[in-house]
Amino acid sequence: MPSISNKGGNMPQSPIRKLVPFAEAAKKRGTQVIHLNIGQPDIKTPQIALDAVKNNTVSVLAYSRTEGSETYRDKIAQYYAKHQIEVDASDIIVTTGGSEALSFVMGSIADAGDEVIIPEPFYANYNGFATANGVTVVPVVSKIEENFALPPIADFEKLISEKTKAILICNPGNPTGYLYSAEEIAKLAELVKKHDLFLVADEVYREFTYEGRTHQSILTHDSIADNAIVVDSVSKRYSMCGARIGCLVSKNKELIATALKFAQARLSPPTYAQIASEAALDTPESYFTDVIEEYDQRRKLLISELEKIDGIKVGKPSGAFYCIAELPIADADHFAQWLLESFEVDGETVMVAPAAGFYASPGLGKNQIRIAYVLEEKQLLKAVRILAEGLTAYTGK
Amino acid sequence: MPSISNKGGNMPQSPIRKLVPFAEAAKKRGTQVIHLNIGQPDIKTPQIALDAVKNNTVSVLAYSRTEGSETYRDKIAQYYAKHQIEVDASDIIVTTGGSEALSFVMGSIADAGDEVIIPEPFYANYNGFATANGVTVVPVVSKIEENFALPPIADFEKLISEKTKAILICNPGNPTGYLYSAEEIAKLAELVKKHDLFLVADEVYREFTYEGRTHQSILTHDSIADNAIVVDSVSKRYSMCGARIGCLVSKNKELIATALKFAQARLSPPTYAQIASEAALDTPESYFTDVIEEYDQRRKLLISELEKIDGIKVGKPSGAFYCIAELPIADADHFAQWLLESFEVDGETVMVAPAAGFYASPGLGKNQIRIAYVLEEKQLLKAVRILAEGLTAYTGK
Repeated sequence: MPSISNKGGNMPQSPIRKLVPFAEAAKKRGTQVIHLNIGQPDIKTPQIALDAVKNNTVSVLAYSRTEGSETYRDKIAQYYAKHQIEVDASDIIVTTGGSEALSFVMGSIADAGDEVIIPEPFYANYNGFATANGVTVVPVVSKIEENFALPPIADFEKLISEKTKAILICNPGNPTGYLYSAEEIAKLAELVKKHDLFLVADEVYREFTYEGRTHQSILTHDSIADNAIVVDSVSKRYSMCGARIGCLVSKNKELIATALKFAQARLSPPTYAQIASEAALDTPESYFTDVIEEYDQRRKLLISELEKIDGIKVGKPSGAFYCIAELPIADADHFAQWLLESFEVDGETVMVAPAAGFYASPGLGKNQIRIAYVLEEKQLLKAVRILAEGLTAYTGK
Repeated sequence: MPSISNKGGNMPQSPIRKLVPFAEAAKKRGTQVIHLNIGQPDIKTPQIALDAVKNNTVSVLAYSRTEGSETYRDKIAQYYAKHQIEVDASDIIVTTGGSEALSFVMGSIADAGDEVIIPEPFYANYNGFATANGVTVVPVVSKIEENFALPPIADFEKLISEKTKAILICNPGNPTGYLYSAEEIAKLAELVKKHDLFLVADEVYREFTYEGRTHQSILTHDSIADNAIVVDSVSKRYSMCGARIGCLVSKNKELIATALKFAQARLSPPTYAQIASEAALDTPESYFTDVIEEYDQRRKLLISELEKIDGIKVGKPSGAFYCIAELPIADADHFAQWLLESFEVDGETVMVAPAAGFYASPGLGKNQIRIAYVLEEKQLLKAVRILAEGLTAYTGK
């Protein structure tokens, strides 16, 4: 039998994947599983986007332009202008999800053996794209006690070597919900300028900020126009995860020209999804006001309910729709599996994402879980109570 | 300014891309450009697929399953059964186009520095996926005089080394239109079995065979069940290039498990496109009868018209919808550009794909072009006549 590649062998499994069979078994037993583990919003996709697809007039479903149509990219540029980001269509490549944008970025900026520094915990799939490109993720630890704020710049500088090509952040953060301040972004800008690195920001949760705070894009810093690369997506913004449309944005012309070559190899992004995504840009502002208000209510409820649990530590999020909680247990992997296998309250249990998979440093995050607050308040409240009872039963206290 | 990766620098440009500005300039001058250069069929997408999307009832456009839904993969397996290919849903991963399937295959079977042997000329984007994975393409020459038949097995064996991980074929071939015989597939099966290699077959043109010949899939050879990997796509089959849905098929469980990890990193294939693609599987047989008849007429017309041109050599295709022609010129790149820049007949010119980009051996194919017969007969006839007049004018004969 021919053997698979070392790279393939090293590709990480999704931290949730190994729990899936246990969730399926629970459902087969008749136990309802409330999912706190996935970032799939329950929010309705804007009607204007759904209608654009239902009313499409395609008769030959042809390839679209590799970099996305001129009109769509023009409209994306207008969207950015509303967020104080000045770019034009030629700075944008439309991609198949933010995932593909990340993949193109990794390929464009790093060779096998190169390194990318990422504050941990971080979105687990960064590991996948790094491994697929032979790139090493070098983690810099952020702490739950500081709500996962930017680690000291000195910590980054200790890790920078000849092999370092970029610093990658997710802002607001998945899985932390942390929103970087203008000062933190300025410090990062100074750092990448000083060391001639790329600064890659995954800004897919841009709109979802709370407590009156606003998001600051790395693209607003003119001094790092050649360093800054933004990865974006319609998935969470418009609750359109299944569209698989994102984009890569940079004013660095060489970077865009290089990423375009990767894009050419895969021909074009999906056509129907681009129809939906272009229409989504006309979503009325009231949609966001309502959605952000909804998430904010859930956030407050989740945090206050979690904080009632004995021995728990919660990283308070001010963006996105995730939070990390540290539990009074040794092994969240085992606890998460136990919740699915051996626990229920009135026929229901919860599925959580063990946080160790969001860390690159071995041993970190083993007693932490990530919770996504993408459920309506009643469900969320019930889920936290099941979690609390589960903890009591599991720890025997 | 931070520097891009060596890999990014080495990524090949599409062989057509550099002609695009000249085509655009021609159009701006008011010259009509007839495209013989792209494999974008003019055939209408099956109504059943278009309707499925127009009548979709999605309200939250959610992630789909990473490997494609159970129902869709079951239906794909039924489709294969009709083509004497026995696989089941667990042997299939739904991908974002055949492109993504190829990318997952490259990552799963080869590490940086490994080699894949491909008969040339071959689909140019194989170079892109190889480069993106740090894999070296080792070409084995097939000849226009033999209509690009499989090169002697001895030629392959000379090239096999410790680094060789797979042999990759496209059957029927893009850009050659060559359809491998049962004997040729059997020889390849024996070869990969002997040397413990993967045999990867891009079979996206499976239906498009002529002269009463039938396609033979590598998946019908039980002896190489662990070696065989098929890359497939709905793009050409249903004239749905813009859907971006394909699949990867193998009975090698380790290969599927590995490819699935690459798939997990990008979450899921596009949802609307899967709705269209699942519905397309119910396309009536008469659609294919009509489409194949149409392509066959075009094929015969194209070949007979091309053969009237003085000094031309044509590789006679019996599958897909491409053919390679060798022209009485030195540099097809220059000729193709000249057609767009300096030539027209009654306000019209043609765009052809220079074939050098389909070869990996330097210098080969420089006097060849690829023609896609995806235009209706009248247009095709006109295009060949413009090409013939262009040749006369260009060569001054």
